[in-house]
Amino acid sequence: MTKTRWIAADWGTTNLRLWAFDHEGQVSAERVSDQGMGQLKPDEFERVFIELAGDLLGQGPCDVVICGMAGARQGWAEAPYAKVPSAPIATDGQKVRTNDPRLNVCILPGLSQANPPDVMRGEETQIAGYLKRHPEFQGSICLPGTHTKWVRIDAGKVVHFRTFMTGELFALLSKQSVLRHGIGDGWNSDAFTTAVGDALSAPDQLTASLFALRATALVSELDPDAARARLSGCLIGAELAGARPFWQGRNVVLIGDPSLCAHYSTALGTQSCETEYADARTMTLAGLAAAHARMTGAEE
Amino acid sequence: MTKTRWIAADWGTTNLRLWAFDHEGQVSAERVSDQGMGQLKPDEFERVFIELAGDLLGQGPCDVVICGMAGARQGWAEAPYAKVPSAPIATDGQKVRTNDPRLNVCILPGLSQANPPDVMRGEETQIAGYLKRHPEFQGSICLPGTHTKWVRIDAGKVVHFRTFMTGELFALLSKQSVLRHGIGDGWNSDAFTTAVGDALSAPDQLTASLFALRATALVSELDPDAARARLSGCLIGAELAGARPFWQGRNVVLIGDPSLCAHYSTALGTQSCETEYADARTMTLAGLAAAHARMTGAEE
Repeated sequence: MTKTRWIAADWGTTNLRLWAFDHEGQVSAERVSDQGMGQLKPDEFERVFIELAGDLLGQGPCDVVICGMAGARQGWAEAPYAKVPSAPIATDGQKVRTNDPRLNVCILPGLSQANPPDVMRGEETQIAGYLKRHPEFQGSICLPGTHTKWVRIDAGKVVHFRTFMTGELFALLSKQSVLRHGIGDGWNSDAFTTAVGDALSAPDQLTASLFALRATALVSELDPDAARARLSGCLIGAELAGARPFWQGRNVVLIGDPSLCAHYSTALGTQSCETEYADARTMTLAGLAAAHARMTGAEE
Repeated sequence: MTKTRWIAADWGTTNLRLWAFDHEGQVSAERVSDQGMGQLKPDEFERVFIELAGDLLGQGPCDVVICGMAGARQGWAEAPYAKVPSAPIATDGQKVRTNDPRLNVCILPGLSQANPPDVMRGEETQIAGYLKRHPEFQGSICLPGTHTKWVRIDAGKVVHFRTFMTGELFALLSKQSVLRHGIGDGWNSDAFTTAVGDALSAPDQLTASLFALRATALVSELDPDAARARLSGCLIGAELAGARPFWQGRNVVLIGDPSLCAHYSTALGTQSCETEYADARTMTLAGLAAAHARMTGAEE
């Protein structure tokens, strides 16, 4: 008998991460692959999964619970969105037909919103993990990243959310726009908080403020590390201006990359908004475990 | 004796355009090369120019008046910025040393602004051309493009200006971001004006509105042509919100690509701002000709 009880997986656009759990509920193996959903056709997912985790499987069917972009229309199998307001994970998810009889695969659904139109896939599992541990939480959860999500939580449900393209804009502007000439790898805290304040007080100046980074470097001087921090501050400040109803006067929890969350915490702190931080990996695992426990009728 | 009296050139980042003028002030030749400043080292400009225009030169020195990025720090020779407030072309420009004795090259300076920091190179020549023809003009000139300029004109001088990264953001987002999957090549006027109105009334929602284009395609449907028009409307609307002091209650002249100027005219028209249009090539030539006439002490 294998020691694997079930496998949790976060299959995003660029990476696949999985964790094998033993019968005592402990993580017995953790693996990462760069075979993200973005580069796979639907009929390639099973092979990739078996290559990465085949040796963890026994002879009987093993439960595999997956969150993330593997459930998109172009993923392994589409797991249709649940509409908000909704519990973060409202259903058992989409069963996936496999050729390998050792697999019992289920992909968790994302969330969608009709007005304004919005979607998430993967973040709902982190939210579920947080709410499993803090069932009484009322307030907002912010998940900074390529597409930062701001999520209003009420009575254990996601009632409203909004996605900001902050991370993707930062990557495009710092690496592929005219600004790339003056952007370094470092950081400058003062430049960041000043830019956040400027953007919050005049968010309509965003696209002019971006060019001003280039102009400042040409007409005077701008340290490349300060330029990078200012670019981030412009974009995060503009986001906070648009997301104000999510954070003003509310409890805010940040889930994501620790250094990025620290920048958000700093930015929100300038507006007297205190935040808590929760580890993304821990919340993902807690969310996947809660989904698995519900599927099997067990309680952890 | 050659029939070329002098040569006007617009040497930008991606292209070099030049026009030879005969002794009657008529354009006797027009040439274009893709050898833009962006791909040239300083010691390569003369060779590129001679390759394109050598056969137009006689034996004596020929005046060559150049505007655009050839005057940048990494260009043929730096033509330092003039600080606003200033006439659009305030000096005779930067003489350039050449190896070929048939050349008498001068590069026109751009304009810079200390607060907020901003720069232009090339647009000042179009503005000079417009003011040569309309010396009494009071109001704002908008030059849409990769980096759209809004310019306040008073008593023949540029008194203030602001650059918005609208065009570059449109290119990055439509071709290299997650939005590219749903962006077509066509247009939808209703989608454009609706997006302009939404962005003008809530410019702080810009980066969320961008992701909503993707989300709309996923949760309902979004015609790719409508998506392209909405993306443009989001960005131009946000720009108009930031540029409001330039256009509200003022005369506005648009100089640039005709179809892009038409979109700006439509967008401004929704705000009861009527615009006039001036052809970019004609204004560039008029500005270069005015600069040459002043250098030579002639009047056209």
